[in-house]
Amino acid sequence: MEKKLKTHPAYDERCPVRASLALLSGKWTLMILFQINKNTVRYGELKRSVTGISEKMLIQELNMLVENKLVSKKVYPQIPPKVEYQLTELGLKTLPIVDQLAEFGLENLV
Amino acid sequence: MEKKLKTHPAYDERCPVRASLALLSGKWTLMILFQINKNTVRYGELKRSVTGISEKMLIQELNMLVENKLVSKKVYPQIPPKVEYQLTELGLKTLPIVDQLAEFGLENLV
Repeated sequence: MEKKLKTHPAYDERCPVRASLALLSGKWTLMILFQINKNTVRYGELKRSVTGISEKMLIQELNMLVENKLVSKKVYPQIPPKVEYQLTELGLKTLPIVDQLAEFGLENLV
Repeated sequence: MEKKLKTHPAYDERCPVRASLALLSGKWTLMILFQINKNTVRYGELKRSVTGISEKMLIQELNMLVENKLVSKKVYPQIPPKVEYQLTELGLKTLPIVDQLAEFGLENLV
């Protein structure tokens, strides 16, 4: 018999790391939040800045981020249409995670 | 014409966030690093602690983590075989990222 796990008690459904990863572990999710950052960003700008992402995936990710209340979307009723994205209060709170990713990358990878 | 991106200069291949995400953005990657943490963990313990992961995926993830030098694996030549995992020096440096995920989860999600 395996002995009971000693390492971390927080491995159940209420584990805060698991909960965060459920929201943020998409391949592009934190990259998009990082690119929006503290700015108001138009869709076209975002498409350029998140290099390598397909249009379909970017739209899908943005819809998911809006649905999960990490990003707010503002559509201006004009021609041509203007769509702007900003981080919500909750979204802004993910930036320390991104900062740690940046620090890890800077120190060890790039 | 879209105007040039104003937000972040670091969106190219040398972007440290992108580099970190390339290494760490797998659905289970940071969860496994979190569960190993500062401990020496046997395969069976890990399998129990990372609830919900399939055996195939756990083995695949662990091999990837070993290959990427985030985790070290020690196999004891005994019967039944004993396999232990530890974070490498590089792997230990991902723990501040996990801490931020935990903090975000605790404050906002669980």
